[in-house]
Amino acid sequence: MISLDLTADVATLTRDLVDIPSESGDEARIADAVEAALQGCAHLAVERVGNSVVARTVPRAPAGSRAGGTRTDRHERVVVAGHLDTVPAAGNLPSTTDGDRVHGLGACDMKGGVAVALRLAATVTAPVRDITYVFYECEEVEGDRNGLRRIAAERPDLLEAGLAILMEPSDAGIEAGCQGVLTADITVRGERAHTARPWKGVNAAHRAARVLQRLADHTAERVVIDGLEYRESLSAVAVRAGVAGNVVPDECVVTVNHRFAPSRSPAEAEAYIRSLFPEYAVDVTEAVPGALPGLGREAVASLVRALAVTPRPKLGWTDVARFAGLGTPAVNYGPGDPALAHTAGEYVPVAQLRECETRLGDWLTAPTPAPVFDDRT
Amino acid sequence: MISLDLTADVATLTRDLVDIPSESGDEARIADAVEAALQGCAHLAVERVGNSVVARTVPRAPAGSRAGGTRTDRHERVVVAGHLDTVPAAGNLPSTTDGDRVHGLGACDMKGGVAVALRLAATVTAPVRDITYVFYECEEVEGDRNGLRRIAAERPDLLEAGLAILMEPSDAGIEAGCQGVLTADITVRGERAHTARPWKGVNAAHRAARVLQRLADHTAERVVIDGLEYRESLSAVAVRAGVAGNVVPDECVVTVNHRFAPSRSPAEAEAYIRSLFPEYAVDVTEAVPGALPGLGREAVASLVRALAVTPRPKLGWTDVARFAGLGTPAVNYGPGDPALAHTAGEYVPVAQLRECETRLGDWLTAPTPAPVFDDRT
Repeated sequence: MISLDLTADVATLTRDLVDIPSESGDEARIADAVEAALQGCAHLAVERVGNSVVARTVPRAPAGSRAGGTRTDRHERVVVAGHLDTVPAAGNLPSTTDGDRVHGLGACDMKGGVAVALRLAATVTAPVRDITYVFYECEEVEGDRNGLRRIAAERPDLLEAGLAILMEPSDAGIEAGCQGVLTADITVRGERAHTARPWKGVNAAHRAARVLQRLADHTAERVVIDGLEYRESLSAVAVRAGVAGNVVPDECVVTVNHRFAPSRSPAEAEAYIRSLFPEYAVDVTEAVPGALPGLGREAVASLVRALAVTPRPKLGWTDVARFAGLGTPAVNYGPGDPALAHTAGEYVPVAQLRECETRLGDWLTAPTPAPVFDDRT
Repeated sequence: MISLDLTADVATLTRDLVDIPSESGDEARIADAVEAALQGCAHLAVERVGNSVVARTVPRAPAGSRAGGTRTDRHERVVVAGHLDTVPAAGNLPSTTDGDRVHGLGACDMKGGVAVALRLAATVTAPVRDITYVFYECEEVEGDRNGLRRIAAERPDLLEAGLAILMEPSDAGIEAGCQGVLTADITVRGERAHTARPWKGVNAAHRAARVLQRLADHTAERVVIDGLEYRESLSAVAVRAGVAGNVVPDECVVTVNHRFAPSRSPAEAEAYIRSLFPEYAVDVTEAVPGALPGLGREAVASLVRALAVTPRPKLGWTDVARFAGLGTPAVNYGPGDPALAHTAGEYVPVAQLRECETRLGDWLTAPTPAPVFDDRT
């Protein structure tokens, strides 16, 4: 098994994580390594759910309580979470570095954030608030495979907290809320024929030109919420046609991915996509709501104050929305430029890795004048 | 193993063949059944090459010759050939019939023709010309998997003949020559990005709209040779794009299939396709020449006279071109409307099955006034 050294520098740890390939569905090796490393931390209780790993600071028993009791004088618990998987490689493995940046698959999205969380897990042995570290599988694929979804379904107790921090890349700032995601298959029909006589059929791939051109010509909306601008988008992410090398295809499926502002519901997003392609069969395969930025919630506002950053809108969907669905305030805060996520040239600045580790470590260990989570229910 | 009854009516035999699924690459079962049935014919020498089966009438030793000699008083040999494979099923299995037509996958292309050849192999025990029956695999896919190509490479002696008759569907008429085939991948490039920020990349699938629209708008040429009109064509047969559900794809590959008149060389066809798509990477994966109709060759002309039919141009590529490459005159002559090949509703008329069996059987058994193959070299 690959061994991770949590006493190493956060940049070295990021490279070590990048160098363990972990495309969605193939996280066993990296989860084994993370689990083994965390088992070495005496102040953490470690559990495994599939290829996700959860490590919690053990509550201190208050003076006079029975040994083994679950009460604690830490009046709050915070989740610090990151996903272990990446999109497929694009010639960007293994990792490289020039000292200032770590380059490689997932460096930005989001092994840099995972490295920060692992460093905090290993070094913050006496936090002022209890911490639940969650390292999970299958974030980059369909929602029903998402490791956080599975934990919420099988072990909801593990996710109980007053605030969740997703260490998704946000340029070491706070990105608030997130956009919703809708995925749909647009099917263009035709009629099969032998390619020696294509005029006897109807070529569905030729017809799909109109769908793709409409996507190319589409201009997405921009929606302002709490002063933050959410820029929507609509992209073809897959095109599939083909029966055999000498057959005019009778079907061409264009899969589209739509990001919509958190003020819009999945049903509204679906109606919008259907209105764009009224003459085709539209099959919605996934539609998940976003999360409103919620800057007015005290749990979020206090973290924003403590980190002294100006919130920005999160355009991509993140599991912030999953915590929002559980009623838990959540933000994105992590190293790396989110615009580099899923690009072949993605990297994470070493300075941001260090900044996130330091500032979040300070917040987790500094005494708080007043309870952070005064709106916790 | 499935058993074929060669004493059954040709329509029944066609249904039996349709009901043995044999998509290209999966011909073992049908080849086993054909081989076993032919082994039961004492006048045939049967050999197997991969999943292709060759059965030859055994040359009669002339009076006074040594037993086992290879000389024969039949002064000519003709190949009767058909492929055993089909394109993928399209909800058209098992076979059905209304008495006048046999419906089902491959009924037209070309299990009807195979049934006629199998009936002739079983019943024509004393032909006036030696016959080589060839039932072969993988005609519907890339040329390098073609069973006839493999026989020509490994056992060229098995294909020696003065004339070849391909029992491809030709409406029980003679279709002369065939068009060439070119297959090419047209690759449209883009740049990956996260779908939450597609404006950071370039969507290759959106860009492919131009390629598909150009194909939709394309008008192919018509070329007249020996009085026969060859109508060319150009079709997308596959479109492939897709990296992951949340990644803007950086590549979209459109595979095109081009049928070109036999007067054009593969190199000319390639130059033509490149001229249509000058701004894209064009990778030619297959380019095979057609075959000129060759109506002036005596071997072809004599068969045309014997069957009393008017030749038509063959638009699809058939292995006629392979025999043309070996220097052997060849024609398409078989039951079924070629326009129905590869359509979900393909069928073969029972009357054409019977007509082909009778007329070809008569030609194979009737004494010929003069040698048919006076231009054989």
